[in-house]
Amino acid sequence: MLEQLKEEVYQANLDLPRHGLVKYTWGNVSAVDRESGYFVIKPSGIEYDKLKPSDMVVVDLEGNVVEGPYRPSSDTPTHAVLYKHYPQIGGIVHTHSTWATVWAQAGLDVPVMGTTHADTFYGSIPCARFLTKEEVDRDYEAETGRVIVETFEERGLDVLAVPGVLLHGHAPFTWGKDAKSAVMNSVVLEEVCKMNLFARELNRFAKELPQPILDKHYLRKHGANAYYGQK
Amino acid sequence: MLEQLKEEVYQANLDLPRHGLVKYTWGNVSAVDRESGYFVIKPSGIEYDKLKPSDMVVVDLEGNVVEGPYRPSSDTPTHAVLYKHYPQIGGIVHTHSTWATVWAQAGLDVPVMGTTHADTFYGSIPCARFLTKEEVDRDYEAETGRVIVETFEERGLDVLAVPGVLLHGHAPFTWGKDAKSAVMNSVVLEEVCKMNLFARELNRFAKELPQPILDKHYLRKHGANAYYGQK
Amino acid sequence: MLEQLKEEVYQANLDLPRHGLVKYTWGNVSAVDRESGYFVIKPSGIEYDKLKPSDMVVVDLEGNVVEGPYRPSSDTPTHAVLYKHYPQIGGIVHTHSTWATVWAQAGLDVPVMGTTHADTFYGSIPCARFLTKEEVDRDYEAETGRVIVETFEERGLDVLAVPGVLLHGHAPFTWGKDAKSAVMNSVVLEEVCKMNLFARELNRFAKELPQPILDKHYLRKHGANAYYGQK
Amino acid sequence: MLEQLKEEVYQANLDLPRHGLVKYTWGNVSAVDRESGYFVIKPSGIEYDKLKPSDMVVVDLEGNVVEGPYRPSSDTPTHAVLYKHYPQIGGIVHTHSTWATVWAQAGLDVPVMGTTHADTFYGSIPCARFLTKEEVDRDYEAETGRVIVETFEERGLDVLAVPGVLLHGHAPFTWGKDAKSAVMNSVVLEEVCKMNLFARELNRFAKELPQPILDKHYLRKHGANAYYGQK
Repeated sequence: MLEQLKEEVYQANLDLPRHGLVKYTWGNVSAVDRESGYFVIKPSGIEYDKLKPSDMVVVDLEGNVVEGPYRPSSDTPTHAVLYKHYPQIGGIVHTHSTWATVWAQAGLDVPVMGTTHADTFYGSIPCARFLTKEEVDRDYEAETGRVIVETFEERGLDVLAVPGVLLHGHAPFTWGKDAKSAVMNSVVLEEVCKMNLFARELNRFAKELPQPILDKHYLRKHGANAYYGQK
Repeated sequence: MLEQLKEEVYQANLDLPRHGLVKYTWGNVSAVDRESGYFVIKPSGIEYDKLKPSDMVVVDLEGNVVEGPYRPSSDTPTHAVLYKHYPQIGGIVHTHSTWATVWAQAGLDVPVMGTTHADTFYGSIPCARFLTKEEVDRDYEAETGRVIVETFEERGLDVLAVPGVLLHGHAPFTWGKDAKSAVMNSVVLEEVCKMNLFARELNRFAKELPQPILDKHYLRKHGANAYYGQK
Repeated sequence: MLEQLKEEVYQANLDLPRHGLVKYTWGNVSAVDRESGYFVIKPSGIEYDKLKPSDMVVVDLEGNVVEGPYRPSSDTPTHAVLYKHYPQIGGIVHTHSTWATVWAQAGLDVPVMGTTHADTFYGSIPCARFLTKEEVDRDYEAETGRVIVETFEERGLDVLAVPGVLLHGHAPFTWGKDAKSAVMNSVVLEEVCKMNLFARELNRFAKELPQPILDKHYLRKHGANAYYGQK
Repeated sequence: MLEQLKEEVYQANLDLPRHGLVKYTWGNVSAVDRESGYFVIKPSGIEYDKLKPSDMVVVDLEGNVVEGPYRPSSDTPTHAVLYKHYPQIGGIVHTHSTWATVWAQAGLDVPVMGTTHADTFYGSIPCARFLTKEEVDRDYEAETGRVIVETFEERGLDVLAVPGVLLHGHAPFTWGKDAKSAVMNSVVLEEVCKMNLFARELNRFAKELPQPILDKHYLRKHGANAYYGQK
């Protein structure tokens, strides 16, 4: 079942090492089929060079396995919470990519310092709080999803306008309309985290991007009046 | 039309990912044919591995499409302003390469700290100011070109002696006598930005290169008495 | 003799340049056969692209060569001390990988700042003291092993829960149940050292990972109740 | 003439991009034949992927071309001065490799902070002073060689024990008994410059390597009682 989606999720998982975002089996990509209410995700702990499209696991929005020869990624409950809460999300990526993880470990939001950021993220990228001992003990991976939701709700953020988050002490999650765009958002996040760190090292008083330039760059690629690309 | 120039521009665009200067479709290269008054530029948002020479778009110096199956790069008006204002420029490159973008986000000119810089850029590389809200709203991409011209005029710089600029909060543009040399100037700028950042981290009192060594290195490769290479 | 172990040690040695952990002949991997009491290690100073499985050297736990056409790695006595002292170790890796060596040169323990660390190392990774002149003169490589043992004993650390160490002014050693897992621990150590350095540069007050999250991440992958992967 | 030496110098030049030490035509390697008193060096400004062994230029110790279809590297007079002054040198390399150039631009000697350094360089690596205007105007490339000699003489250094130097504001030169070992010394210098910069960033009070460990590591690989490798 969901053969085409498995192929897409398989390719998107392979894109992670191609873009230098993961080592070994770290990281996972999923994508959802809204009609059936199932999503497809990488199996847990299988090396990328041994992975086949048919190894992808089909899971329902409660995180129960529907089909597949393997156990799904241990982060599956986080994906499930996000798909359930945000019907506008089609694909999700989790990596421990170097520079995004550096910001996550620093416990800081990523400010908008340039148009590379503004082309993809419409505002600063939030760093969610540490999970409490109670949350960790109760249901760690699902609570991780809930802390992401809490962060976006408290700040009133649109998940498609800011398609990613850092988890304090952990690493990033990104998402998008499908698996491929979720991977692209991970690539951009990684690059922006690298650039912003060194921009602040070079000039600790470096300014954030003025709002009109942020608006221009985000809106020329996204929304009703976009004029970037061939559409 | 302009088949040879399309091939050159195509190859120069492919050089960007080869040199690690771009990810995905970020970045664009153009080159001008002064006889016809047209320039050739990459189409907008097409992935590099799908690009063909015949996909290149022919544009006039007002930025109007003359020939081509696709819409040109969204940065086309910036290229047009530079070709129109500076008849000595033959090729232009725009990237968001990591280290040059770091300096652009820091909002700082790149000082001459070594001969790697002096071999290609005869003096510090300017960082142009943020565009104002009025400029952004009026005609963002063309105004970007005008701010570059303003920067070089205010400082009295020769665009061929200093073949590149940073845009505050954005990224670099470089240029040269043709597309290939414009790409080479982007490669040098990227490397110099990396070296200079870390030289200042290592020794915040690191000195700029003395003028006689700057003169020697620039002039042994450029100008009437150059003796580098086989010419 | 020990042909299969030689093949494993050979492959694990080749993994070092594949993962970017070594240049030239720097670095070495060994693995032990507990039944015979012999271990297999890379020969000294042979380039990786000329290495064959049959070039691996068989050594006893006193460091005496049992079989092999070449002299073993000059670090063989360090490996011998560790295998002799810790029967639970099956494979050992030594590299001068960049970021782990940076921490070794800085003379600092690597604190737990994120889950990337916690997935593999159950606590901070110790930096062992400089060897004294007496130790260097007496038997440098064996004394290196003894200083590692001293470090783990003084701190009461479990070598399988913290499968690696830094030697002040030198570089890391890692180990594991076999050669392959010892290499993986080197890869993780290298990445964690890079991330932690820049996390502290970005925010010098960055917090260490709270204990419940450290426990959760380490124990979901290791120990009796692990649920990561397919086992 | 000197066909085998041309082949060696050709291969050593190709090793520069293979090890990531150069971009484009930056950098050059030479090697000397002490019997004839001639040395072989890369031609100036030829791209690496078009280079052939027969393109190498034969030059005498005054820097005059003896044979070859091309003009030799513009840095030829620097090589000539070093070969003439130091009969123990067999090969020389010049690059603008990133991290060594960072230290050259910072104008700092590279201190011995670890055994990676001590395995190859027996003491700190000196940074030679800026050339004066008079030296630049008189004979820039030859004076560069003379400033290197001056630096080693003033400090009483053995060029084979410390086989490299930084030129303030410029970049490194390294050397060795032949072209291949000179390249290896460039690789080590580059790595050590990267490690030492970040070790000091991580801990600005990081200690230099104690003398007994420096002695041990240098002397176990070099000199009469060396026991590293298969010799």
